[in-house]
Amino acid sequence: MVHSISDGAENNDCETDLCSPPHRQAENCKSTYKVGFPPRRKLCREFAETLKETFFSDDPLRPYKDQPKSRQLVLGLQHVFPILEWGRNYNLTKFKGDIIAGLTIASLCIPQDIGYAKLANMDPKYGLYSSFVPPLIYAVMGSSRDIAIGPVAVVSLLLGTLLQNEVDYTTNKEEYQSLAFTATFFAGITQAALGFLRLGFLIEFLSHAAIVGFMGGAAITIALQQLKGFLGIKNFTKNTDIVSVMKSVWGSVHHGWNWQTILIGAIFLAFLLSAKYIGKKRKKLFWIPAIAPLISVILSTFIVYITRADKNGVQIVRKIETGLNPSSIHRIHFSGSYAAKGFRIGVVAAMIALTEAVAIGRTFAAMKDYQLDGNKEMVALGTMNIVGSMTSCYVATGSFSRSAVNFMAGCQTAVSNIVMSLVVMLTLLVITPLFKYTPNAILSSIIISAVISLVDYEAAFLIWKVDKFDFIACMGAFFGVVFVSVEVGLLIAVSISLAKILLQVTRPRTALLGNIPRTMIYRNIEQYPEATKVPGVLVVRIDSAIYFTNSNYVKERILRWLRDEEEQLKSKDLPRINFLIVEMSPVTDIDTSGIHALEELYRGLQKHEVQLLLANPGPVVIQKLHMAKFTELIGDDKIFLSVGEAVMTCTLKAVEDV
Amino acid sequence: MVHSISDGAENNDCETDLCSPPHRQAENCKSTYKVGFPPRRKLCREFAETLKETFFSDDPLRPYKDQPKSRQLVLGLQHVFPILEWGRNYNLTKFKGDIIAGLTIASLCIPQDIGYAKLANMDPKYGLYSSFVPPLIYAVMGSSRDIAIGPVAVVSLLLGTLLQNEVDYTTNKEEYQSLAFTATFFAGITQAALGFLRLGFLIEFLSHAAIVGFMGGAAITIALQQLKGFLGIKNFTKNTDIVSVMKSVWGSVHHGWNWQTILIGAIFLAFLLSAKYIGKKRKKLFWIPAIAPLISVILSTFIVYITRADKNGVQIVRKIETGLNPSSIHRIHFSGSYAAKGFRIGVVAAMIALTEAVAIGRTFAAMKDYQLDGNKEMVALGTMNIVGSMTSCYVATGSFSRSAVNFMAGCQTAVSNIVMSLVVMLTLLVITPLFKYTPNAILSSIIISAVISLVDYEAAFLIWKVDKFDFIACMGAFFGVVFVSVEVGLLIAVSISLAKILLQVTRPRTALLGNIPRTMIYRNIEQYPEATKVPGVLVVRIDSAIYFTNSNYVKERILRWLRDEEEQLKSKDLPRINFLIVEMSPVTDIDTSGIHALEELYRGLQKHEVQLLLANPGPVVIQKLHMAKFTELIGDDKIFLSVGEAVMTCTLKAVEDV
Repeated sequence: MVHSISDGAENNDCETDLCSPPHRQAENCKSTYKVGFPPRRKLCREFAETLKETFFSDDPLRPYKDQPKSRQLVLGLQHVFPILEWGRNYNLTKFKGDIIAGLTIASLCIPQDIGYAKLANMDPKYGLYSSFVPPLIYAVMGSSRDIAIGPVAVVSLLLGTLLQNEVDYTTNKEEYQSLAFTATFFAGITQAALGFLRLGFLIEFLSHAAIVGFMGGAAITIALQQLKGFLGIKNFTKNTDIVSVMKSVWGSVHHGWNWQTILIGAIFLAFLLSAKYIGKKRKKLFWIPAIAPLISVILSTFIVYITRADKNGVQIVRKIETGLNPSSIHRIHFSGSYAAKGFRIGVVAAMIALTEAVAIGRTFAAMKDYQLDGNKEMVALGTMNIVGSMTSCYVATGSFSRSAVNFMAGCQTAVSNIVMSLVVMLTLLVITPLFKYTPNAILSSIIISAVISLVDYEAAFLIWKVDKFDFIACMGAFFGVVFVSVEVGLLIAVSISLAKILLQVTRPRTALLGNIPRTMIYRNIEQYPEATKVPGVLVVRIDSAIYFTNSNYVKERILRWLRDEEEQLKSKDLPRINFLIVEMSPVTDIDTSGIHALEELYRGLQKHEVQLLLANPGPVVIQKLHMAKFTELIGDDKIFLSVGEAVMTCTLKAVEDV
Repeated sequence: MVHSISDGAENNDCETDLCSPPHRQAENCKSTYKVGFPPRRKLCREFAETLKETFFSDDPLRPYKDQPKSRQLVLGLQHVFPILEWGRNYNLTKFKGDIIAGLTIASLCIPQDIGYAKLANMDPKYGLYSSFVPPLIYAVMGSSRDIAIGPVAVVSLLLGTLLQNEVDYTTNKEEYQSLAFTATFFAGITQAALGFLRLGFLIEFLSHAAIVGFMGGAAITIALQQLKGFLGIKNFTKNTDIVSVMKSVWGSVHHGWNWQTILIGAIFLAFLLSAKYIGKKRKKLFWIPAIAPLISVILSTFIVYITRADKNGVQIVRKIETGLNPSSIHRIHFSGSYAAKGFRIGVVAAMIALTEAVAIGRTFAAMKDYQLDGNKEMVALGTMNIVGSMTSCYVATGSFSRSAVNFMAGCQTAVSNIVMSLVVMLTLLVITPLFKYTPNAILSSIIISAVISLVDYEAAFLIWKVDKFDFIACMGAFFGVVFVSVEVGLLIAVSISLAKILLQVTRPRTALLGNIPRTMIYRNIEQYPEATKVPGVLVVRIDSAIYFTNSNYVKERILRWLRDEEEQLKSKDLPRINFLIVEMSPVTDIDTSGIHALEELYRGLQKHEVQLLLANPGPVVIQKLHMAKFTELIGDDKIFLSVGEAVMTCTLKAVEDV
């Protein structure tokens, strides 16, 4: 415990000074512990381990170990089709939970599907198609028990915007739909490929903050788009930014608004929001907001049918064709410029869809305490979208709102998705003609009340409190979406996320360390103002791996710490610095540029007659320093197990020199 | 010193156990040191400091502090034009060094310039132009004393390839040259802007390994291109990959090779390489390889003139127009599609040119121990290229080979560049007609002997020894350039560099810690096999900031450590783990995703009845954990100054529970 070392360089007691007899002290001082030099691993083993940590960090082959071949086959099949695993323990109790949950989410999804299809500039039936086939596929292959599959607002908006940039849906509907199926196909391929190649971690490059901002912005944009249906405006802008939309809205205030539409919309929006509020206040009443949309649709359709309000300008859904999903394989572009466009759009939609689905899956898996393999999920979601693209569906994924309802309604397995899918099937076969008189305003109200909870201002406030830089990312994405477009918002979100990573590796933190009184521990003097510097010794900690991105900065920064310190000492007429100890504990890795920087640091210090010492280099670092002969350059005796021991040696040496 | 803690949970001595009386022990055990919680800084101050570290880490305003206004003006002018600073102390001794160095590099640069211009598909005179104006500008604005400015091989090759992709120089020479000037202009703008906006650190994203590979590949490609001149082949491929070039070479073996050309080329190449070898062996004879190229040119020109070998198929330079740089402002495209193309090409060329110049500047600055401001250098290099683009120059930068000669010839200041520039001017005015009979084969030999030293196999071998991943990057760039093209090689280099950064932040290392005998220190048990685990306690260290990119991985990885450990304990019938200590020393920062992951970890551990403890969170981390109320969640008493203290508390608790 070098607790009084700061009293002066003459003081050379170094450990257990409170009680050790003098001879013990001297003994302890000399026996500094050698820094461990782990046995060098074989190249292939090292490589295999890196690969494993990168791609198989979840150790997926663990259950297969020490099993007979037949069992391995069963396990493999169960891995691809988890239904084979949980299906064997399926029973009536579970089915009861699933059927209630399934019916609830079906009643929620039917009106949402019709509305979301319009966001994607598709006919309403495609929304319903996408709630029929994909959930069935997912039920067989997916491993989340709580996710509710179908079209979602943000992906629909994104697809609508990106597709519209390529083909105009008003003038060239057929081609627009073909491109939508093409994009869906490639979205599925992308998702399945990411999962299969175990590159699922790529979606983690979108930071939480960026997602919060992006989702919030998308929700606002979607809500603004609904003003068209809500106010009954006929000529509405095709842009999604708030300025264009507001111009459209105000421009048509005198002749474009329809008061009957507004009346119906406002009443039902109030109803939906109240239902939502009740559901939020009393968790047991979750079913009220869940069935409110369907009730609104039924009531409003009935009202319009009775009053024939559509003659007074209230816009209605008109026709939804009856019948199940037709095949759409022949409409997918597998080559040509449309294939390229579809691919680009598909990749973007795939990533957003994955982000949403994986977040939902993880949240509920953590709540119910079961494991979820992200890569396996991606394969399931991808397959579902590939099959979907061939059966007239557009990109489906897990929906936040419906999954929450599913969970609260007591779903047990993916069977609730099957139930929902069957209800949608019945709807497609029988009920669709009844939607004829459903006013568009109701669909708008339903969408507004659905997306409003995506504006997560609480999360944004927490981000503000915790990390200002993250908040900038969040706001950048938000305003990008709201004021420019979904793509720009997404681009901002990704760029800021990446910029943060790059900044982190370019400008790592460094800190001056001081001795914590009565211990041998050295800590950041900013965090522990009572920590005292040791005269003649400067202790600097580098808080990052030293790589080409920061090696120069690290070197310069250390020299700046030294320069600043020396100036301060000079002004106070105190003895100069003779030793610079670099605490390497947080330095997890180093590359050739980093070693080069250390060499330059060593040479620079030599010219100023300051000795360089290293404390606690990790296994990888010490090995590489050894390989590059840096340890020879500065001397093996300049490398210590801990800062405490390094300081001890310095002060002993200073005494010897005197 | 919990040295015997591993003997069993009953053992509760915790500090200074070798000598403390028992009552002391108990006292020490209870007085664990509280983790420091630094006073919260104001938002604007925090922001300002982050900005400063990012953009002004070199503290450029330091000398201006506490100075009168007039002095600040002088300092400011000297900052922009360093010649005002060093020019005042200039004297005859320095001039002697500079004039010798200047003459030497002039003799080296004239033949190189003519050859490099051909690499860029430009007429020879443009190479000379680029060695006249840019060095003059640099001498006034640059702060490196040793760099030699002019066209360089790699940038010339890069420009030649990129420009040729847009405009064919054989059919549309005028437009090709215009595009070259446009690219040069935008390269200058890019360089100056990077420096002015203090974004110079961006060039550090090209890793050392990638540069070694790229340069080596470019050198091989350049040497292969010289086979055209060296073998006297007339129909040569325009591609630069080794396969196309070799096809060209073998395809013309029977009718395209010219033995007189080969003879002249081979003799002088042997001469040049011997000169190089001598210069390398005896540093004092550095001037032999420096003037060998000029001697070769003079001799070979004389020989061809006498023997009229050009009549026998030996290709000669023919005409180089006399006269200084004409203005080329009117030839730069400031708008339109060519401007966009020029901009793209310019940005790429600018980055490569900067990388080379800054590396040279830093190397020699370190040798002579003076400071070099990277951002200032970029402004100087950028201005020089902007002016160059208006005076018929193409992209110039610092040349490795000529700078080394400059240094060895004893240059003192940038005046050596002025001397060189004046010699080139005289050449342009008077001597160019004499180059008429210079055989192309000689230029090829000169280029081959110049670029061959860019193949830095020693650096590659060191990279192989130190870091296998870096080696892959190096080889990727190398083979990309050699087998595909310069752009592809560059793209590979950048991608692998970025991938490495991203991988580093996605899959941080984690380690199990054990107690080092007779200390309270805990270290990686892989590095210190003698370190012992503490029964009932698992100590895990996370070696990175916890960000959105790795938060999930970190959580899963810690749980995997726990699972693996518990299985091992079970198989050995040992007591289970009750405490999980996370050593946070290397965790320099955390974001909302990271805190979320910690919360999930805490909940997951709770379900398994394992207590979570944190050791030594840094100032930023503890503040953020506090903000997000994570400290409340796990309890303030679960956060410790060091692993040692945390373990002590655990073992005490275990004893109490028994």
